[in-house]
Amino acid sequence: MNFVTHLECSLTGKHYPAAQVHGLSEAGRPLLVRYDLEKIAQHTDRDAWRHSKLPGFWRYLELLPLLQHNDLPELGEVITPLLSMKQRHGAHVLIKDEGRLPTASFKARGLGMAVAMAQQLGIDKLAMPSNGNAGAALAAYGQRAGLQTLVYCPADTPEINIKETRLCGAEVALIDGFIDDCGRLLKTRMQEEGWFDVSTLKEPYRLEGKKTMGIELAEQLDWELPEVIFYPTGGGTGLIGMWKAFAELKAMGWLKDQPLPRMVAVQASGCAPMVRAYENGDEFAQRWEDAHTVAAGIRVPAAVGDFLILRAVRESNGTAIAVDDDAIRDAWVAAAQHEGLLMCPEGAATYAAYLQLLEQGWLSRDARVVLFNCASGHKYPLPESS
Amino acid sequence: MNFVTHLECSLTGKHYPAAQVHGLSEAGRPLLVRYDLEKIAQHTDRDAWRHSKLPGFWRYLELLPLLQHNDLPELGEVITPLLSMKQRHGAHVLIKDEGRLPTASFKARGLGMAVAMAQQLGIDKLAMPSNGNAGAALAAYGQRAGLQTLVYCPADTPEINIKETRLCGAEVALIDGFIDDCGRLLKTRMQEEGWFDVSTLKEPYRLEGKKTMGIELAEQLDWELPEVIFYPTGGGTGLIGMWKAFAELKAMGWLKDQPLPRMVAVQASGCAPMVRAYENGDEFAQRWEDAHTVAAGIRVPAAVGDFLILRAVRESNGTAIAVDDDAIRDAWVAAAQHEGLLMCPEGAATYAAYLQLLEQGWLSRDARVVLFNCASGHKYPLPESS
Repeated sequence: MNFVTHLECSLTGKHYPAAQVHGLSEAGRPLLVRYDLEKIAQHTDRDAWRHSKLPGFWRYLELLPLLQHNDLPELGEVITPLLSMKQRHGAHVLIKDEGRLPTASFKARGLGMAVAMAQQLGIDKLAMPSNGNAGAALAAYGQRAGLQTLVYCPADTPEINIKETRLCGAEVALIDGFIDDCGRLLKTRMQEEGWFDVSTLKEPYRLEGKKTMGIELAEQLDWELPEVIFYPTGGGTGLIGMWKAFAELKAMGWLKDQPLPRMVAVQASGCAPMVRAYENGDEFAQRWEDAHTVAAGIRVPAAVGDFLILRAVRESNGTAIAVDDDAIRDAWVAAAQHEGLLMCPEGAATYAAYLQLLEQGWLSRDARVVLFNCASGHKYPLPESS
Repeated sequence: MNFVTHLECSLTGKHYPAAQVHGLSEAGRPLLVRYDLEKIAQHTDRDAWRHSKLPGFWRYLELLPLLQHNDLPELGEVITPLLSMKQRHGAHVLIKDEGRLPTASFKARGLGMAVAMAQQLGIDKLAMPSNGNAGAALAAYGQRAGLQTLVYCPADTPEINIKETRLCGAEVALIDGFIDDCGRLLKTRMQEEGWFDVSTLKEPYRLEGKKTMGIELAEQLDWELPEVIFYPTGGGTGLIGMWKAFAELKAMGWLKDQPLPRMVAVQASGCAPMVRAYENGDEFAQRWEDAHTVAAGIRVPAAVGDFLILRAVRESNGTAIAVDDDAIRDAWVAAAQHEGLLMCPEGAATYAAYLQLLEQGWLSRDARVVLFNCASGHKYPLPESS
């Protein structure tokens, strides 16, 4: 049932053994899980996934690193809906509403998988920094699996996230700084007290959980991917993960024969390190100073997977675009008032980016597009209606 | 595709024609939609529902009053998860998490159906009073269907609900009083301005939407219903609706041969008109004065469906129970801290009621139980962790 062959450093390509505890590679870069794709393609009926007894993203077992699939830390995972922006944009623009997952955000995918793997590998103390949603997901899945959890958050993280994370049993410390400052401070304590680091891309399994966004999307669209995907990009695990999923599905011959989607990394004007690096033609991104945006989830000044984000954007013939807070607020209100959809600000940023690239002529009005709404709007202070 | 034979006054039994606009019956009581159940049983493959192209509750077409099923006001309905309370109560206690529906509450079922029916019957202005979640669902589905919506809320309705409802395009007025006071004030304006009244049970189709909780539960449990259902009871549409669904499924011979679930109406000690009427042996419930509880959704002093709630509780050999706010808060915290589940306070009330009836010996520890968590915990000010 497990088809993992090995893990691989995303920068140097060096191999590491499967079914073991791993952090970053020796080169200090993320590790990627590799599978025997040929064997999976032979042994798997992709249509059987639809009838799996496992809920939501757990069903894609063959493309996951799980060592066994009994007693998973389930919290009621669902296949998240694809909604059309019916009133304004017709069936061409779809929103994937990740707010329906446990803890009401896409963080459930990555942290669910990381927690399950930690449990199966015998790790019992998990820690990481978070802007809010990831911490809540770690706490809830950790609680479900009976593990201890510790989260460091920027002091201005929304109150609702802090309360939720604590309520679900995590120890939470508030730090005067950004998420990468939290990470630095937390590191010392983790080493002293023996916590395992589940920060974005610093262990290999969150990425495999996030990857399921891509598999699920392909399945929902009958293996015919959209032309363009807009993704709110902070740490970028989802964008990197989807691109990995598409490569795997393509290698197995499961995708309709057409170009892969153009990946658009959406950032906020007040924190756009990937956009700057993309425009400068850089392989790696420099830290963004004085980051600020209403979309707290993508306020990530520096990402360990920067080169993987930029690689996916470039390989896919996509782009990286920054939208300002006014545009995010306008798009947020417009989606509610025209479509009855309550997005989160990071999701609204993708809608703003879509409108901007449409105006610039980067894509056509009838391009088949998917926007990622990464969390429920209910987790945020809502904007005033106009 | 439509199997409705007629509508029927829930008190007098008088018949009314199908496929027409209806409010209350001439006797001022709720109307119930009746179907040709024999014909449905003959023509329907219940297992085909699982593979329907329609999402979530829309799939139960044959048992719904819809006149056609193209262009429904969909917002990404999902089959809501059934979660086990694994750590403390094992697989015996399941929580049906209705917070995963559009607008993050069970109100989506009733209002989705009422809006679809209004649209199909040519009504374009919908109004009602709401404690918060229903208003948001009316606004979102109304927006999706292109209808006008108007909602009156008690002035102390949570800010997040008011903002969401306005953001999704409804006109919202705040009233100094309870939900029934709102209803009275709204009535005059509705008559003057030609708004259609979609208040709880005052039109017949919200009930049919809520009924799908019962069908969905039966389908998820392979047509073997639980022994006891705990339901947070304000207006009681869901409890009445599930009891109606069970009767229909039983008449069609689709349920495993066993007693129907005992229906437990859960109220808050600060607003328990049904519990008082149940204990007094009354057919109808008197209005509860000076209502107060942390569980705003069940702060309903008087319900037009009172006798239907009491009838379902009695016919099912169930009970009605009140829990105080301290017990609600304790259960709310316990579900998060022991299980990683973020309930809403009304959902937590059902858990508190379960613990209370367990202690009283009213049910056994191995009874198969379903608790209804009617909304996402993210829509409420969360309690402090202990």
